[in-house]
Amino acid sequence: MIRHAVLFKWTTEATDEQKTAVAAELTALAPTVPSIRGFVLGPDVGVAAGNFDFAVVADFDDEAGFFAYRDDPAHREVVGRTVTPILAQRVAVQFRY
Amino acid sequence: MIRHAVLFKWTTEATDEQKTAVAAELTALAPTVPSIRGFVLGPDVGVAAGNFDFAVVADFDDEAGFFAYRDDPAHREVVGRTVTPILAQRVAVQFRY
Repeated sequence: MIRHAVLFKWTTEATDEQKTAVAAELTALAPTVPSIRGFVLGPDVGVAAGNFDFAVVADFDDEAGFFAYRDDPAHREVVGRTVTPILAQRVAVQFRY
Repeated sequence: MIRHAVLFKWTTEATDEQKTAVAAELTALAPTVPSIRGFVLGPDVGVAAGNFDFAVVADFDDEAGFFAYRDDPAHREVVGRTVTPILAQRVAVQFRY
């Protein structure tokens, strides 16, 4: 199994509506991507200093499944419309487990 | 459930032995921490540019479970001995799912 863990830091100008839209749109997208085996996300709960603001953790059978998600046109559209406008920093790791 | 996702970037001087020790020591530690409900980790598989080097994803029933892990003396000892010496950057998010 390949796990894709990606953490986002939003811009200081990002509104609650924009942050909520990212979670809602990615949650709606996930069931339409056949290679996704697991998909959870959420905003940081705010109990640790210095954290980023939002996380997505997605599971795939293999690298090809991850690429299928990453390059899915509907995914790219959602990212471009909801994530990119409020993105300050993005950090990711894909790891096998 | 609270998921703790943390991504690490190692220093350029970090050796393979040091990186392997982080994974081995954290893997050995996890079963000794009663509040852990799920625990997976691994080095980045190297298929995406700009990624960090290593990820840990751990699940807990609640924030108290996360704090118990974070502040566990054996955990602090492992982090101080294996992670800190090779740490360039660390980014984390705790989220509810």
